[in-house]
Amino acid sequence: MNPIFADLPTTVFEVMSALARETGAVNLGQGFPDDPGPADVRARAAEAVVEGWNQYPPMMGLPELRRGIAQHYARWQGLDLDPDTEVMVTSGATEALAGALMALIEPGDEVVLFEPMYDAYLPLVRRAGGVPRFVTLTPPHFRITDEALAAAFSPRTKVVLLNNPLNPSATIFPDEDLARLAGFCQRFDAVALCDEVWEHVVFDGRRHKPLMAFPGMRERTVKIGSAGKIFSLTGWKVGFVMAAPGLMKGLAKAHQFLTFTTPPNLQAAVAYGLSKDDAYFEGMRADFARARDRFAGGLTELGFSVLPSAGTYFLNLDIAPLGESDDVAFCERLVRQHGVAAIPVSAFYAHRPVRTIVRFCFAKRDDTLDRALERLRGLA
Amino acid sequence: MNPIFADLPTTVFEVMSALARETGAVNLGQGFPDDPGPADVRARAAEAVVEGWNQYPPMMGLPELRRGIAQHYARWQGLDLDPDTEVMVTSGATEALAGALMALIEPGDEVVLFEPMYDAYLPLVRRAGGVPRFVTLTPPHFRITDEALAAAFSPRTKVVLLNNPLNPSATIFPDEDLARLAGFCQRFDAVALCDEVWEHVVFDGRRHKPLMAFPGMRERTVKIGSAGKIFSLTGWKVGFVMAAPGLMKGLAKAHQFLTFTTPPNLQAAVAYGLSKDDAYFEGMRADFARARDRFAGGLTELGFSVLPSAGTYFLNLDIAPLGESDDVAFCERLVRQHGVAAIPVSAFYAHRPVRTIVRFCFAKRDDTLDRALERLRGLA
Ligand SMILES: CSCCC(=O)C(=O)O
Ligand SMILES: CSCCC(=O)C(=O)O
Repeated sequence: MNPIFADLPTTVFEVMSALARETGAVNLGQGFPDDPGPADVRARAAEAVVEGWNQYPPMMGLPELRRGIAQHYARWQGLDLDPDTEVMVTSGATEALAGALMALIEPGDEVVLFEPMYDAYLPLVRRAGGVPRFVTLTPPHFRITDEALAAAFSPRTKVVLLNNPLNPSATIFPDEDLARLAGFCQRFDAVALCDEVWEHVVFDGRRHKPLMAFPGMRERTVKIGSAGKIFSLTGWKVGFVMAAPGLMKGLAKAHQFLTFTTPPNLQAAVAYGLSKDDAYFEGMRADFARARDRFAGGLTELGFSVLPSAGTYFLNLDIAPLGESDDVAFCERLVRQHGVAAIPVSAFYAHRPVRTIVRFCFAKRDDTLDRALERLRGLA
Repeated sequence: MNPIFADLPTTVFEVMSALARETGAVNLGQGFPDDPGPADVRARAAEAVVEGWNQYPPMMGLPELRRGIAQHYARWQGLDLDPDTEVMVTSGATEALAGALMALIEPGDEVVLFEPMYDAYLPLVRRAGGVPRFVTLTPPHFRITDEALAAAFSPRTKVVLLNNPLNPSATIFPDEDLARLAGFCQRFDAVALCDEVWEHVVFDGRRHKPLMAFPGMRERTVKIGSAGKIFSLTGWKVGFVMAAPGLMKGLAKAHQFLTFTTPPNLQAAVAYGLSKDDAYFEGMRADFARARDRFAGGLTELGFSVLPSAGTYFLNLDIAPLGESDDVAFCERLVRQHGVAAIPVSAFYAHRPVRTIVRFCFAKRDDTLDRALERLRGLA
């Protein structure tokens, strides 16, 4: 067995969801909405699986979906992507990320990672042969500084892996930080691998700005998106990869060998969904922002210390004021004794420098959130 | 870019399918049926996407599907698998294979590969850090000999990757060869990674015997199956992995980081499909055997030299009697000048020792096959 994978624990998201199922806890751990997702998009998938093509679609994705992706990002982010050479469909953003790392990295290449980071990043980088160089971001602002980048980049830096908006901190990097990072990528001739799956889930009038849109980044950025996050259908596992043709060629090879293709009925439904007008996207954001406010308000009333959430499905509690110093132990107690599953944010760090932040998923129906609040009463 | 992937050509299956789309050729290249697949299984998927859960399913697969897989293989192959610890659902057999290689291999480990081999095998082995050791099998019998195994195995052998029934040769390894291989696996303490996706597509009363069922192999075999091949729905990308708990733990980690999960509606439909009675499986086999016979008969009548097909969607032509010595050039001409796409079998070998065999997919409607035969008239 390869120890890079074998020695790892099961992902904390799966562990917490399994614990929640077992104990009957309200599951605010793993990030998924508990509403069924847009009925028309699901109906389109049903129609396609009954009436449509169920054999291998083209390896790069259905042409209608690739066109839809290019149009979508032109409209929302001003990107100018050629659907034939710069867009690929994958079996979820995780596959996109795994494939990109396998394609871009050669053993010994350095990869700059920002902690907190999604728990797949580090093992994938290691398994691809990459040498991680960490930039540690800390609450409450999670800013990227010049000093931190200078310490992490080297002539051996091949890839920088950035998640923006950032899970679990629920922050969006300011343009200033992104421009700084773009400068380092150019100076060190590095590729920016941008996990931007939360790009649409941003609140209070904010707009996501893709790193690819920064000067000098168009040719050196691999952008990853997720239909599951856009349409609140996290189980669908339809991801997007966007990159200049020279990069895309290599990425396509990795995709070819990892999953080869993605179910055509779900692709057709996503293509349909992407053509929705602005009202859908604004409505989705407004709904999640309302849920965030309901949950944050309830927690504050109960006496908890809530960190702000600018995007994603998540908000964080600072448990230090409760006298807690171990987020993992706290989450264990929370799920087993109080019936609420959450995620200890230290799980997103390689060395646990942050141990008093706990992440909750608020992308839930009102009654789910209210039930959780009821169970949290008296804890603060 | 990592040269292992970047330097490879696009897979011949995709190239030929694209050429067929462009030129309007009858596509007998890439292996997929051109009928729509079982209506009830597709209806079940439609129902699940409309009525059911569209968020992350459990990482290992829906419990109902894992139970269904265990029951299915108990009934058909006499395997005794614990659905909770020995069965995992993946996003297709390709992901299962990629994950298994990533999980099992450490850089420098030797991997025994049998040529002809599916074109993903070698790059995946190399990217995982494995050192390939080839056993070359040749027409018409594609037998595994003691001498060949003795030459390929060494104390550094970690994994043996076997495809049985074998694509593209359309042969099934005799028990004698499998027992021989099982002996080598035990002697050299190697894991057998068995791509058995064609296990149900076997003709003339044959039954597939999984390598896992051979004495001493239960604990050292990773078995891979495919719902796409079982239900003629190749685009669905629902694969199965079966292995003893100790192996499965490592395999699950790789799956966790490659795709994490597989769309729940398709999983639910496959669970439903697996409970079909024997009549479905016998009917599927009988239909494909009829198509094989129609196409083989037609080709023979036209004067072609047809190799036997014991299973898979494929049959092979020996083009040497036509005075041909380059299967790639022959297939190029076939698709461009005669309007029929096929696959040159040399694409399945690392060193092209075989250059006069051409593979056709006969898993097509009668009129598709007849159209192809019409276009092949006069070539032999
Ligand atoms: C793939 S499970 C994790 C889902 C998610 O994005 C999260 O909870 O952070
Ligand atoms: C993944 S495309 C190839 C399908 C197939 O099994 C074949 O044609 O051999």
